[in-house]
Amino acid sequence: MKQSELFTKTLKKAPKDEESASARILIQAGFIDKLFAGVYTILPLGWQVLKKIENIIREEINSIGGQEIFMPALHPLENYKKTGRDKLDILFYTELKNKMKLVLGQSHEEIITPLMKKYISSYKDLPKAVYQFQTKFRNELRAKSGIIRNREFLMKDLYSFHRDQKHLDKYYESVKRAYFKIFERCGLGKKTYYTYASGGTFSKYSHEFQTTIPAGEDLIYICQNCNLAINREIKDEIKKCPDCGGSNFEKKKAVEVGNIFKLGTKFSKSFNFRFTNKKGQRQDVVMGCYGIGLGRLMGVIAETYHDKKGLIWPSPVAPFIVHLLGFDKKAEETYQTLKQNQIEVLYDDREDKSAGEKFADADLIGIPIRIVVSKKTLGKNSVELKKRNSKKIELVEINKLVKRLKLELRR
Amino acid sequence: MKQSELFTKTLKKAPKDEESASARILIQAGFIDKLFAGVYTILPLGWQVLKKIENIIREEINSIGGQEIFMPALHPLENYKKTGRDKLDILFYTELKNKMKLVLGQSHEEIITPLMKKYISSYKDLPKAVYQFQTKFRNELRAKSGIIRNREFLMKDLYSFHRDQKHLDKYYESVKRAYFKIFERCGLGKKTYYTYASGGTFSKYSHEFQTTIPAGEDLIYICQNCNLAINREIKDEIKKCPDCGGSNFEKKKAVEVGNIFKLGTKFSKSFNFRFTNKKGQRQDVVMGCYGIGLGRLMGVIAETYHDKKGLIWPSPVAPFIVHLLGFDKKAEETYQTLKQNQIEVLYDDREDKSAGEKFADADLIGIPIRIVVSKKTLGKNSVELKKRNSKKIELVEINKLVKRLKLELRR
Repeated sequence: MKQSELFTKTLKKAPKDEESASARILIQAGFIDKLFAGVYTILPLGWQVLKKIENIIREEINSIGGQEIFMPALHPLENYKKTGRDKLDILFYTELKNKMKLVLGQSHEEIITPLMKKYISSYKDLPKAVYQFQTKFRNELRAKSGIIRNREFLMKDLYSFHRDQKHLDKYYESVKRAYFKIFERCGLGKKTYYTYASGGTFSKYSHEFQTTIPAGEDLIYICQNCNLAINREIKDEIKKCPDCGGSNFEKKKAVEVGNIFKLGTKFSKSFNFRFTNKKGQRQDVVMGCYGIGLGRLMGVIAETYHDKKGLIWPSPVAPFIVHLLGFDKKAEETYQTLKQNQIEVLYDDREDKSAGEKFADADLIGIPIRIVVSKKTLGKNSVELKKRNSKKIELVEINKLVKRLKLELRR
Repeated sequence: MKQSELFTKTLKKAPKDEESASARILIQAGFIDKLFAGVYTILPLGWQVLKKIENIIREEINSIGGQEIFMPALHPLENYKKTGRDKLDILFYTELKNKMKLVLGQSHEEIITPLMKKYISSYKDLPKAVYQFQTKFRNELRAKSGIIRNREFLMKDLYSFHRDQKHLDKYYESVKRAYFKIFERCGLGKKTYYTYASGGTFSKYSHEFQTTIPAGEDLIYICQNCNLAINREIKDEIKKCPDCGGSNFEKKKAVEVGNIFKLGTKFSKSFNFRFTNKKGQRQDVVMGCYGIGLGRLMGVIAETYHDKKGLIWPSPVAPFIVHLLGFDKKAEETYQTLKQNQIEVLYDDREDKSAGEKFADADLIGIPIRIVVSKKTLGKNSVELKKRNSKKIELVEINKLVKRLKLELRR
């Protein structure tokens, strides 16, 4: 797309009322806009990133048999009374004109459990895995850390349904592998740790995926032998690594980018959600649930990949692959060539901006590859290519550019 | 996908508490599920349809310069006080823990106007067009007609911003053309009429796209000369066709599938949203807004395309293109061949269902092309092909099937 047409503009200064670096930089570069604390609009550049994150998650969850649906955000309070979560601290309340009491979905166990009860009656109907991308509403007392802990945010929530604990355990492992692939593809593979955490009301332990960042709100203990981590909240209970028995840990600040819970039969019992087993007996369906917050993931990627000049997007989640900076009318030809070759390109065609402003904006927005077309480069039948994560600047012949870019994309 | 793995099942009987045929049939076939009146879960088959509708809309709105964003559903009540819509009859109210008053988004003028104000300051920044797919919440006293008038629903809402009325008028015409393309691609082209309606608080008239269906909640008067229509609500004011001057009208029941409003400067004035014109003077930005409800569109397509046996999806919005009914293990080979050729196929591999049940389900679900693989057809090295909208059954040689299907898809 042409940058002259993009309605957002980079801001001269980062906002002062944001405590996290990622929020400051994402706002300054025009990826998000704050409506009020904990509630953000996702702007065109940010929406491209979120769509790419969404597609990565969709591919990996589909590959483990997930079926995509879309559940409502308005939930009957009645359903929460059945599970005992009607007094949950973070609920938003509202009501219909006929006084029917509602809460806004903070998660969807109270909706998916009675839904699945309509379709599952026999062991032959199990296992099943169902997911959605849907907004969650959480009435946090204080929304903090920019887009890391929000009052309204997009979440991928997956729910799985099984005959027994053994089948749940097996599926849980396949979700774990899918989650690692997702974080790997988003560029967070090396800094993300499978972490034991408190199970809350569901089970003794739950598991989180924690990404280490200096501004993390959690503290994790990473086993130096096997890379498993333990959340501070249960470090006193667990002295040795549950996986390898090691006792040498490194303490690091981190932020949760995903969590997976073995719900067991808690919600099945609340809704009397049972199936007939092979022996003809009725028994409770065993459930698991698995979440990833999309905006939070974008925030953590931004926390991980930025420098003083701006963002440095990993290619798979970048809003565009190429930022084409035009200082000559012939740049338009390069723009058309890239578009025809399905290379995602933001073309800075603005005529009222100086070279300095264009270079600064390119660094701030952080698209992986910057291409400069100017009289000087055209004199050599070339364009200038620089990667955002490198200092090297090279000349590439115009007629070899597409081939070179496709090579970069394959890496 | 394999039908044995799909978690939904068709219901033996349609629900009795739904007044519209489309809702009854969509629930029976497993496309949607009612949580409570006016609030539905979109199930896997329905979600495939909505995603296709969404992509059609996205392509057409992108082609007229729309930039996609994602605005929040939680809105400060304060913003509604500025526009005088804080007492709007259909608002849902809620609040933060710190008592900040919120409403749930029923539309997004109160959010987009102050957002655009941050980026638009000069005539050089205009025009702009920005849209999103986002849930709307409307506290209707009575939700009726299945998924036609809901309390919670997905909507594409586009907003445009212009220097003056003349520029708005021009863009308005391009949206009108894009809308006709959208309804045409969804199979509603011939039955959808551009209709003059009341402008409400914004202007004298607004314009609706009305699709004629027997169960329609609106009544329109269609000019027999030029096909323009007039909504009953303003028929007393407008005696002659505003386009051709004709006075011969046919009265038909219809349902609104899209609407477009010239907002003028109503919202700009509320938020003091102004720009500097070429002469250096400050003036109000002129706005338009344009909506299409996605679930409603699915409902109207279902109302238009069904018979006593079930749904009859037009290909561009069908959940799958081929419904493969297997009565022999070799059907698996056909399934794999179709998948490898990127033909979207639902494979009925269920072993505990009779032929009669499989045929009835195929008619109910309404996928455009039914392929039967049985010992009988295999004996002739063939499969049986029948379109849902035709009675003709033909034998197609197995090695010619993919070519034949690709031919069908190109039609």
